[in-house]
Amino acid sequence: MSSTFGSPRSVSDIGNAMDYALDEATNGPQFGPNPRVGCVLLAPASDNELRRHIIAGGWHEGAGTPHAEVAAITDARLRGIDTRGATAVVTLEPCNHTGLTKPCTDALLNAGITEVVYAIDDPGADSGGGADYLRARGVHVWQIKDEMILEEARELVLRWYHAIKTGRPYVTVKLAMSLDGRIAAADGTSQWITGLASRRHGHVVRSTVDAIAVTTGTALHDNPSLTARDEADNLAAHQPLRVVVGMRDLPADANLYGPGGDLLHLRTHDVHAVLAALQDRQIRHLLVEGGPALTTALFAAGLVDEIHVYIAPVLLGAGTEAVSDFGITTLADAPRWHNIIGHREGEDAFFIVRTAPRTWVFDLEADE
Amino acid sequence: MSSTFGSPRSVSDIGNAMDYALDEATNGPQFGPNPRVGCVLLAPASDNELRRHIIAGGWHEGAGTPHAEVAAITDARLRGIDTRGATAVVTLEPCNHTGLTKPCTDALLNAGITEVVYAIDDPGADSGGGADYLRARGVHVWQIKDEMILEEARELVLRWYHAIKTGRPYVTVKLAMSLDGRIAAADGTSQWITGLASRRHGHVVRSTVDAIAVTTGTALHDNPSLTARDEADNLAAHQPLRVVVGMRDLPADANLYGPGGDLLHLRTHDVHAVLAALQDRQIRHLLVEGGPALTTALFAAGLVDEIHVYIAPVLLGAGTEAVSDFGITTLADAPRWHNIIGHREGEDAFFIVRTAPRTWVFDLEADE
Repeated sequence: MSSTFGSPRSVSDIGNAMDYALDEATNGPQFGPNPRVGCVLLAPASDNELRRHIIAGGWHEGAGTPHAEVAAITDARLRGIDTRGATAVVTLEPCNHTGLTKPCTDALLNAGITEVVYAIDDPGADSGGGADYLRARGVHVWQIKDEMILEEARELVLRWYHAIKTGRPYVTVKLAMSLDGRIAAADGTSQWITGLASRRHGHVVRSTVDAIAVTTGTALHDNPSLTARDEADNLAAHQPLRVVVGMRDLPADANLYGPGGDLLHLRTHDVHAVLAALQDRQIRHLLVEGGPALTTALFAAGLVDEIHVYIAPVLLGAGTEAVSDFGITTLADAPRWHNIIGHREGEDAFFIVRTAPRTWVFDLEADE
Repeated sequence: MSSTFGSPRSVSDIGNAMDYALDEATNGPQFGPNPRVGCVLLAPASDNELRRHIIAGGWHEGAGTPHAEVAAITDARLRGIDTRGATAVVTLEPCNHTGLTKPCTDALLNAGITEVVYAIDDPGADSGGGADYLRARGVHVWQIKDEMILEEARELVLRWYHAIKTGRPYVTVKLAMSLDGRIAAADGTSQWITGLASRRHGHVVRSTVDAIAVTTGTALHDNPSLTARDEADNLAAHQPLRVVVGMRDLPADANLYGPGGDLLHLRTHDVHAVLAALQDRQIRHLLVEGGPALTTALFAAGLVDEIHVYIAPVLLGAGTEAVSDFGITTLADAPRWHNIIGHREGEDAFFIVRTAPRTWVFDLEADE
């Protein structure tokens, strides 16, 4: 989708232009098979101007819609702006691949772009190589090195990048528990350990992921809907795929058959098979909401990339543990994570830990 | 101790004067049997001035030293300032009691103070009643009603006030644990689950409390020193009383016999007896650092006022639970706490929960 820079601004340096491109990118959806990408076009250098100004901008709205570069070029064309000799500043290396849309590389060449600056390499086996392709055709292509900009650009495509690079979805596990690490009291009662603010926050997160998984045990015990709902309890525009993992059948009146995303029942206990099945469906970001058997199996297999931790100020002293034994016997062998960001959700503490450290902390998607 | 307001400022209204008094109070120590109190004196109203200015200020440095009111009056006298007709603005109701020092009420009367504004009622059976005493002698005495100021004043004397009011120390439990609520791996390894920043933070907290308690089990297993140390690992100026709870003897070479606070061995398993023994020693704030048997017994008895929660981004899946069964079988019976404040300590999440909610959140002592 394109934005109109009606009054050219004197944003000259590439870093500032990349900031604009990153802002454009955030207009795109967090879910879906494609990454969020933004692009702005800088006017050619001119003797009359000390600084080059942005002449157009655009972003990618998701699979099947124009890529950010094409959106920016279209934005310029619609307003009669000549793009010949312009510089494209784009958050991801331009694709070199005919998929649902034509390659961005040819679109840039056809528009007469003579310089391309990008932030993140395209990791795709099919779509990558755009930089070299353009260079071979005389375009000056280079990658920005500013670590803070790169971190923001990486954050923007974190889950997509991971899925393309590793061949499996990025896995976020949600743990909503008592201060002492329990998800249910001794008699099985668990609604609600965490407060309303945490649960609302959880729905915002759901509205950003591609799929939510629970075990058949959790589906049978809690009868969840696994929908993303807004504050008025209405369904959000985007509903993630609902995934149930396990052998047992669900009753015909299960809430999982109600309004919401598609339902996928994976009759397996093999977490690798679960992720492979989801990768086949171009799921980039999977949110796992339990039960402990699935969560623990994912931890045991080293397949968890991020944990969303909601801790309620309540003590149970007994009951169901959020995480069960997964083979750690001594502290030195326990997996260490990185604490990315945290805040209070009502009376609960919320924080995000990841396997990957983070140099700069920006607004996280879940906070939007 | 007194501060010099060399250049009288046009701080007229009582709220601002109380803010100054609260600031003065924070110069006093957080530990010790006495509360932190601050006092400022406002010049008598004058036809020449639209606003009354602060003429003196002082705070209480701890038991045996002048109370804040006397410190402020002394501050004025030393600089030749006439206190007759002045208003005393003080964070706590002036005491009416001869203890280690003479009553503040008489000091205020002798100084010719004609108006007293205070924030917090003195809860002491001996020391209370100062307001009525002064009123009976013609002083205009009133209590400030601003909720934000009152909250700050309450926070200042929270632990002392609790101890005087209830007859037992304010109890803070420290829980330093894994994401899944464990304080040791299956083989007993526990050093260190939390990171350096959390441990340093724990030492800052130790330097503000009156006593630290552990069980003999923890003393024998971990051989802790229970000292408050600074970043260079030197002993802090204030060392809390070290308390060991349990029947077993400690070995003669235990670190608890090394440099640090006095050592008190309480040969009991009765947590009420522990608190009574500490109340006898004028301990206002007890920090409990384990083991789980003591912590759990305190939770079971409903004797915990605050929990300092340090959560490391590490998963154990098995091992020693931070809190054991204390009789909760269903969620509705579990004690609910209030999340007061939280921040990140290195890679760990840290937050404070209390039994008492808090309307306004100020800098906590532990953050200083």
